[in-house]
Amino acid sequence: MPDLARTLAHYVCASRPEDIPSNVRKEASRALLNWFGCALGGSGADLLGRALTVADRLSGPREASVLGRGMRLDVANAAFINCLSSSLHAFDDTHLASIAHPTGPVASGLLAMSETSAVSGKDFAHALLLGIEVECRLGCMLMEPPGDCSVAWTMTGLVGGIGTAAAIAKLLGLSERQTMYALGVAATQAGGFREGLGTMTRDLPMAQAARSGVVGALLGAEGFAPSDSALDGPKGFAHVFAHTPNFAAATRDLGRHFELMNNAYKPYPCGIVIHPALDACLDIARSHRFEPDDIERVNLRVHPDAIIVTGLKEPTDGLSAQVSLYHWAAAALVRRSGGLDETSDSAARDPVINAVRRRVTAEMDKNFGRDGASAEVRLRDGRVLTARVEHCRGSIAKPLTDGELEEKLFMQARSVVKEATARNIIKLCWGLEDVADVGSEARRLFPVK
Amino acid sequence: MPDLARTLAHYVCASRPEDIPSNVRKEASRALLNWFGCALGGSGADLLGRALTVADRLSGPREASVLGRGMRLDVANAAFINCLSSSLHAFDDTHLASIAHPTGPVASGLLAMSETSAVSGKDFAHALLLGIEVECRLGCMLMEPPGDCSVAWTMTGLVGGIGTAAAIAKLLGLSERQTMYALGVAATQAGGFREGLGTMTRDLPMAQAARSGVVGALLGAEGFAPSDSALDGPKGFAHVFAHTPNFAAATRDLGRHFELMNNAYKPYPCGIVIHPALDACLDIARSHRFEPDDIERVNLRVHPDAIIVTGLKEPTDGLSAQVSLYHWAAAALVRRSGGLDETSDSAARDPVINAVRRRVTAEMDKNFGRDGASAEVRLRDGRVLTARVEHCRGSIAKPLTDGELEEKLFMQARSVVKEATARNIIKLCWGLEDVADVGSEARRLFPVK
Repeated sequence: MPDLARTLAHYVCASRPEDIPSNVRKEASRALLNWFGCALGGSGADLLGRALTVADRLSGPREASVLGRGMRLDVANAAFINCLSSSLHAFDDTHLASIAHPTGPVASGLLAMSETSAVSGKDFAHALLLGIEVECRLGCMLMEPPGDCSVAWTMTGLVGGIGTAAAIAKLLGLSERQTMYALGVAATQAGGFREGLGTMTRDLPMAQAARSGVVGALLGAEGFAPSDSALDGPKGFAHVFAHTPNFAAATRDLGRHFELMNNAYKPYPCGIVIHPALDACLDIARSHRFEPDDIERVNLRVHPDAIIVTGLKEPTDGLSAQVSLYHWAAAALVRRSGGLDETSDSAARDPVINAVRRRVTAEMDKNFGRDGASAEVRLRDGRVLTARVEHCRGSIAKPLTDGELEEKLFMQARSVVKEATARNIIKLCWGLEDVADVGSEARRLFPVK
Repeated sequence: MPDLARTLAHYVCASRPEDIPSNVRKEASRALLNWFGCALGGSGADLLGRALTVADRLSGPREASVLGRGMRLDVANAAFINCLSSSLHAFDDTHLASIAHPTGPVASGLLAMSETSAVSGKDFAHALLLGIEVECRLGCMLMEPPGDCSVAWTMTGLVGGIGTAAAIAKLLGLSERQTMYALGVAATQAGGFREGLGTMTRDLPMAQAARSGVVGALLGAEGFAPSDSALDGPKGFAHVFAHTPNFAAATRDLGRHFELMNNAYKPYPCGIVIHPALDACLDIARSHRFEPDDIERVNLRVHPDAIIVTGLKEPTDGLSAQVSLYHWAAAALVRRSGGLDETSDSAARDPVINAVRRRVTAEMDKNFGRDGASAEVRLRDGRVLTARVEHCRGSIAKPLTDGELEEKLFMQARSVVKEATARNIIKLCWGLEDVADVGSEARRLFPVK
């Protein structure tokens, strides 16, 4: 379509906070709260420490907080690290239509930039939801039929930088033309593939997107000009990632419909396409008495993507277990739980879980949506236990409540910050629209140690 | 193919300087000399200044020289800026088989890293040529039949980061496993599309590749582990950029054959696929007397890529003129020259050149290689002037001489450094194998102002 970048830039620049329905503004707070929890939850991970060593070595002016680490980095490196942290437990939000994880890059980039100049909570929330909107709509453009973006691409790596650039452009008050530039420059840096699933690089494209968004917005502000058709031209963003992009999806009902309302928060730290099968297995495990040894065979029926994206049969450590449908089904049946403890190296190597895992089979069933699945557990005593999930916990049809989001944050923040800090983060999110300066709040919440 | 990353990492780690034939080592000096000239030549450009404002704002420890700017940046930002500078006049080298510009990212990343620890010229040259080798071979893998990488991708943006990571891994003496990690991490950040042709973002993917190579090598050194199959797995680097990669091209005769020997240096600051037509037009212009007004019609016959990649008919400024076959044919016929003056905004808007440009047509002719073309100029007096070029100046068959490379450097360095400095750069390149510490030399040549 002609002028996609201009259309999106115009939308971002012209939008006023009062144009946004209150339920959408509320959803921005929920997305932010979920993100804070995830960023704290991932901050102690080994792989984050490795990335942080490099970011620390290269860091410029230390203007932006690194969550859970008691230190600061330059805005680009802080955005990179906080996004990596918020993604690495696969506990981040998911926009199911595109399988993008929208808040990670946008919130990471925005929070970092908000520490460099005063920005109200109202403006922060507004920029956040606009960035997420741009990101998710571009994801829909690539994925919705006839959009045929390969599942080999990491969606957030493709669209996250552009959404982040849009959000920061709004935060900085860039002109429509500068905003167009920011989107195009960020798009030029899009990429990342899924071969990294189950390894330290799985979330690198998302972290890279956060960085690209920051750099894209700063370059856009300097008048660093891409092609006006960077997003939609024949050799541009849309066409390199999809042969037949669905351009209408990028702009239809812009300003009236909000993809943020189709954003899901995970109750379990693993690939979201695993969740319905995990729900079904937990249902069975919590409703019946049996021992792991009693299990003869487990059969799952799932949406095809659950096998295409998370069909890893033999995980060897926590990182690979995160993306193994078979591991989570087994862990749920053995431990009757699906939390961070089940995503550890030791859980991945637990002989009891592994013995059950080898008895799990899965079949693609196109009758299920991405949030549906069924499980059948055959026990040696002849019992056949079944559960069918049409919409898993955390799906759009069955969203986590505010209380469940708070619990999730407390659980992830527990070993990283004091409970009082966790409470203050929650307070910041629910009261976001009344915060005078988000950056100052961030510095107070995450002091340098 | 299985184990591509391991194969390349093993090659890079096991290679010794004495394994490299002297003509290949000499070619590394030529590539470096050409790169120095280009980086100086681009250092004053407006778009570079804009990028530099952002890089300066974000810069960490200022360990690495920015050529022609009298300042330093952190290694990642310096690599980014020097690569952008060396690319932006389209005067950089070209590996014709892949249309990659190999030296930009690799030399930019290596020079920056060489300023952080002592490295001999011999080791620098060795790392440089190994990085270029990895880069060009991966380009061949994507492009050689059945490799079917779309021309919409910016090749250097795809392979440049991996080559740079390989070179820096060698420079730092990383282990084979760390080197594999470096390659995989850099690959995860590959990307960049050609919609930016004729705009400031054309060379952003290359600059980004230089940065990705630096960051990839540093993360690899920290044990930040991608999938072992990051390069060749079903959802990995090779398969996202080509449906049917030519894996054999990546590794055949590794250590015996050097793609660096297929690297070309440009006599003209424009897309290399323009050069044969430009040569033909210059032949005609320099062999015959006529005025611009005498020209009735110009017809070019060119390799299809010349039209696919540089078929821009109506350039509006210097950046877009760089990638317009029609502009350069007209400029050559009007000014009897094809230098930096013909790539300026004013040349792009010169009414005399524009009038001739509108009379230029071009036809695809598959009988020509990428380095061949013919031109036919019909004059109003009835004369028909023709020229046919089988191999253009600067092609592999007709390479620039050492003397021509020196002249090219002097021409580009003229307004940036003193002639004595230009001479010392040339001395550094020809005497590279005897230099004790490249980083110290760089700091002497490019002092902070």
